[in-house]
Amino acid sequence: MEVFTRIADVRRALGSSRREGRSIGFVPTMGYLHAGHEALVQAARAECDTVVVSIFVNPLQFAPGEDFESYPRDSERDREILTRAGADILFMPSVADIYPRPLLTEVSLPELSRTLEGRTRPTHFQGVATVVLKLLHIVWPDRAYFGQKDGQQVAVVRRLCDDLDLPLDLRVVPTVRESDGLALSSRNVYLSPAERRAAPTLYAALLQGRSAALEGRRGADVAAEIEAAIAREPLIRLDYAAVVDPETMQPKDALQGRVMLAVAARLGRTRLIDNIVLEL
Amino acid sequence: MEVFTRIADVRRALGSSRREGRSIGFVPTMGYLHAGHEALVQAARAECDTVVVSIFVNPLQFAPGEDFESYPRDSERDREILTRAGADILFMPSVADIYPRPLLTEVSLPELSRTLEGRTRPTHFQGVATVVLKLLHIVWPDRAYFGQKDGQQVAVVRRLCDDLDLPLDLRVVPTVRESDGLALSSRNVYLSPAERRAAPTLYAALLQGRSAALEGRRGADVAAEIEAAIAREPLIRLDYAAVVDPETMQPKDALQGRVMLAVAARLGRTRLIDNIVLEL
Repeated sequence: MEVFTRIADVRRALGSSRREGRSIGFVPTMGYLHAGHEALVQAARAECDTVVVSIFVNPLQFAPGEDFESYPRDSERDREILTRAGADILFMPSVADIYPRPLLTEVSLPELSRTLEGRTRPTHFQGVATVVLKLLHIVWPDRAYFGQKDGQQVAVVRRLCDDLDLPLDLRVVPTVRESDGLALSSRNVYLSPAERRAAPTLYAALLQGRSAALEGRRGADVAAEIEAAIAREPLIRLDYAAVVDPETMQPKDALQGRVMLAVAARLGRTRLIDNIVLEL
Repeated sequence: MEVFTRIADVRRALGSSRREGRSIGFVPTMGYLHAGHEALVQAARAECDTVVVSIFVNPLQFAPGEDFESYPRDSERDREILTRAGADILFMPSVADIYPRPLLTEVSLPELSRTLEGRTRPTHFQGVATVVLKLLHIVWPDRAYFGQKDGQQVAVVRRLCDDLDLPLDLRVVPTVRESDGLALSSRNVYLSPAERRAAPTLYAALLQGRSAALEGRRGADVAAEIEAAIAREPLIRLDYAAVVDPETMQPKDALQGRVMLAVAARLGRTRLIDNIVLEL
């Protein structure tokens, strides 16, 4: 695996790959990799000639007071995981490489960014959209891989690519879970043992919501069901339980077609999210 | 010259050009071409293997009440001009091709868009930035050509490309003028004979400002000089005369380095802009 930190260098390497007619698959990450990221790399490996992974903890998608500084980092371990998973290129730019001057360009999707995560993190998806667009311009992949775990991010990036005519296949890879159902997340490392034991309640509640939806209940009812299931676990403080259209992120009450059930909650100082998508 | 209206078709044609290792030069226009556009095509022709010109009157950069509907169009004549100028590919999408669904993505550069043109056209550069980014994603050129006549647009596009890591050489081509100094513009066709006779006053006033700047006067003085020169012509209603940094579009008073003198004015119902850049 080749490792690059400079934009010009990764661009040069990908330029020759592209001139040889090799397809490029791209997995953007914030590092501290887990089996969920590995699934993204494996999906890219199976479909693309050159697999590029980026590790960049993007300050722009963290608000003041969020965990940018303390976000877990372990680049030694990440390199080992990626080498094993068969990535060809690792791009690890510094913050100064990606933001060398004050950013005067704003890229945002206000309608998709106001609900769910956007309610407590109003600038988050502007940061996501900006860095994803920059990374896509640097890597210019044929396919890019995102995890369903960040369901609203998937909606934002998909619409960004469609609206701006980015000629890219967006691949969404199912959420990878622990055996007790907890969705893998780099932030799981923050959980105390007691919080870790409580955390699978989020997914269990989503599954209860799923049953309610399959029984034909309305969106508001399904959300209330999820909320009640989580309320039974005293270590979890619910942020939201929502039933939305997975493309528009708008609440859906009459449930048919694709429906996303989404939750966000705090366990102590750790904020976790999870979701499932149903086809009704 | 090949003519394409569909995004997928022009992309396919450019894909094979690119695979053959041919460099791509791109000239985005709104059509109704004049010698200023021809200078852009000639610059591209001299430097690039494949020259692509787009003609698209972009509704997003016109505000309600502006001249989107009446903006002059003559695609027969445009094709002849481009064939003669040696363009290889003409891309003429419809509004429905470029905006097939509600646009949820906003691309803007507020700091560069508030001054000068932005004061009377607050949404203009958001429209410009959005369509330029979309067209660049469709064409993905090695070089793109813009006219210095739209000096603030140059600043916006340059910063857009820098901020978003678009790997593109931006080429800025000097303003082409009539023999009496009037900057070529598709909107000159709106002028009555009397207005046409008055119009060169704009450039004459910029040259007076230039003399004042070369004499060591301050920015505010130079702007006042330009304003006074235009005030002598009763057919012209000045919108602004400004002395700014050509990159930041912020007013410059102590004049050194690169300085842009810019004017906008109305002649009857026609709004014209012009500028010159000095190195002091």
